[in-house]
Amino acid sequence: MNTRNTPEKDLIRRIRSAGAGNSRRDSAVRLGIGDDAALFSPRRGYETILTCDWFLEGTHFLRDKHPADSVGWKCLARAVSDIAAMGGEPRCFLLSLGLPETHAGWWLDEFLSGLRRATRKFKCPLAGGDTTRRHEILMNVTVVGEVRSGRALLRSGARPSDIIYVSGRLGEAELGLRRLRSMGQVAKGDSRLRKHLYPEPRISLGRWLSHYGMATSMMDLSDGLSTDLTRLCAASGVGARLEASRIPTASKSQRFGVKNVDALDLALNGGDDYELLFTVRPSKTNRIPRTFQGVALTAVGEITRDQTLKLVRRDGRKLPLHARGWDPFGTT
Amino acid sequence: MNTRNTPEKDLIRRIRSAGAGNSRRDSAVRLGIGDDAALFSPRRGYETILTCDWFLEGTHFLRDKHPADSVGWKCLARAVSDIAAMGGEPRCFLLSLGLPETHAGWWLDEFLSGLRRATRKFKCPLAGGDTTRRHEILMNVTVVGEVRSGRALLRSGARPSDIIYVSGRLGEAELGLRRLRSMGQVAKGDSRLRKHLYPEPRISLGRWLSHYGMATSMMDLSDGLSTDLTRLCAASGVGARLEASRIPTASKSQRFGVKNVDALDLALNGGDDYELLFTVRPSKTNRIPRTFQGVALTAVGEITRDQTLKLVRRDGRKLPLHARGWDPFGTT
Repeated sequence: MNTRNTPEKDLIRRIRSAGAGNSRRDSAVRLGIGDDAALFSPRRGYETILTCDWFLEGTHFLRDKHPADSVGWKCLARAVSDIAAMGGEPRCFLLSLGLPETHAGWWLDEFLSGLRRATRKFKCPLAGGDTTRRHEILMNVTVVGEVRSGRALLRSGARPSDIIYVSGRLGEAELGLRRLRSMGQVAKGDSRLRKHLYPEPRISLGRWLSHYGMATSMMDLSDGLSTDLTRLCAASGVGARLEASRIPTASKSQRFGVKNVDALDLALNGGDDYELLFTVRPSKTNRIPRTFQGVALTAVGEITRDQTLKLVRRDGRKLPLHARGWDPFGTT
Repeated sequence: MNTRNTPEKDLIRRIRSAGAGNSRRDSAVRLGIGDDAALFSPRRGYETILTCDWFLEGTHFLRDKHPADSVGWKCLARAVSDIAAMGGEPRCFLLSLGLPETHAGWWLDEFLSGLRRATRKFKCPLAGGDTTRRHEILMNVTVVGEVRSGRALLRSGARPSDIIYVSGRLGEAELGLRRLRSMGQVAKGDSRLRKHLYPEPRISLGRWLSHYGMATSMMDLSDGLSTDLTRLCAASGVGARLEASRIPTASKSQRFGVKNVDALDLALNGGDDYELLFTVRPSKTNRIPRTFQGVALTAVGEITRDQTLKLVRRDGRKLPLHARGWDPFGTT
């Protein structure tokens, strides 16, 4: 065998070993890395959920600021969050990786270590992928999930008078990004960076809401509440009224030391939260707990027949709510 | 709704319309673009095939040389070829697209036109994806296919004394690339470029071989026969003896006008053929036709117990066969 064939083989071997932490016993992956494609055995009575996400240097993370193990964790976490947002559970994923030669050593090891932790945490083994050499670090992640047929929670199901809920506190990830940008040396263990570096998709919450038919619509908060709620309302053909005073914002300890922070602005327009946004019929709100596995569930407003989005400020004034979150193709 | 949200929405609308040429009637896609993820209904008795492929400017195509509609066609065709290589049929795909602002107009329209033709030809509708703005044109394509449970043809099934087959003629795509590089103005209609610009994955042939249990192993030829046969032999724990005189090389009319062409070298080491490489038990070779739907099927050698790869030249000399095809992570 020619040595020219070695680099890709070696890379694939190392990536494969990162996915090997998952037990094959109850895995749906019948054939993994090493053939033309992977084979997956779907469960009877379930639908397959498919999602893919870019994770690109410069656009989604900074090569010199983001620890490599966070890049590994987060590239999977954000795609898994789309599965959680449908009320499903992740089953396996494909990783496409473009890597400079300079990053195929230590950086890749750290990256794979973060990725391995994520595959275990989310019970989502690596099934295949594609690798190529590239000047920039490029990633694309496809996650395959499953949900009981007919049980998926879509963006399009919200109805007038439904109550709007969010999980967790919003804006902490954006705050973490600002903190990261201002730091010289990144302390990975800094708990104020955790929400930004190691987000945890709300898989159990999404499954619970789907299983018990609790929500009429759902999506994950990846681009900011103002932008994502606008999308949910557009898909459902409805409007919404948000109560500013109810929106769970970043805590004081999280905000400490970051300048010019408007917590409400961060909560409305900050990206990368990976919390869930969902709507509940008024008759079912008494069955929504205040916390689910330690994560707060907060009613923040109401769906309206009038197809506009309004924000009710603390002083009672109603203002139009504009989508000011992240647009990957936006002009700013 | 804020205008800052318009660019991505507009882009997604145009991409969605490119996938709309497919009839939803017998489509497995229950929910397509516009939600957090797509929903796919697997068929009972089938396994799901998963594959993803990079298609990147500079690495896999040249922005100024490759017509945009060829980029659209080929990004899907290459990934579909991995499904064909398992003996499966494509069911739907996800497209991740990174695009410079300068290419979001005419170039994108042409790209989507080529992609639309491919989705119809391969009966593989668009189910979802991700878009982002980027200086370089980046694509990643995930194709989901299906194959009857237990019928997938793997790389690992070749056994000593199996006969090695290839479909089509090898090296014509590489020849097309050389012609393209040397051309000032690309004539899209030039039939000598077709194999390179608009490859046709061998879906029907793969399904036929799988359905009738004709082959013991199979893969597609994407990186050159020398490299891909090396991989198949490694996966099967066997060796191979190729007969140089039997390898179907580019025709004279294809070679016309391109300098310094060694047709055998192109056939062994040229990439992008997307033909099928498969092995057949000697007792079944009489059931392999000479052509399948107009595509030649040629016996080119034999699998050996000895785990080395040999090339028998026309003069009878046996030489070691080195993997000199394309390695995306190679040093040259």
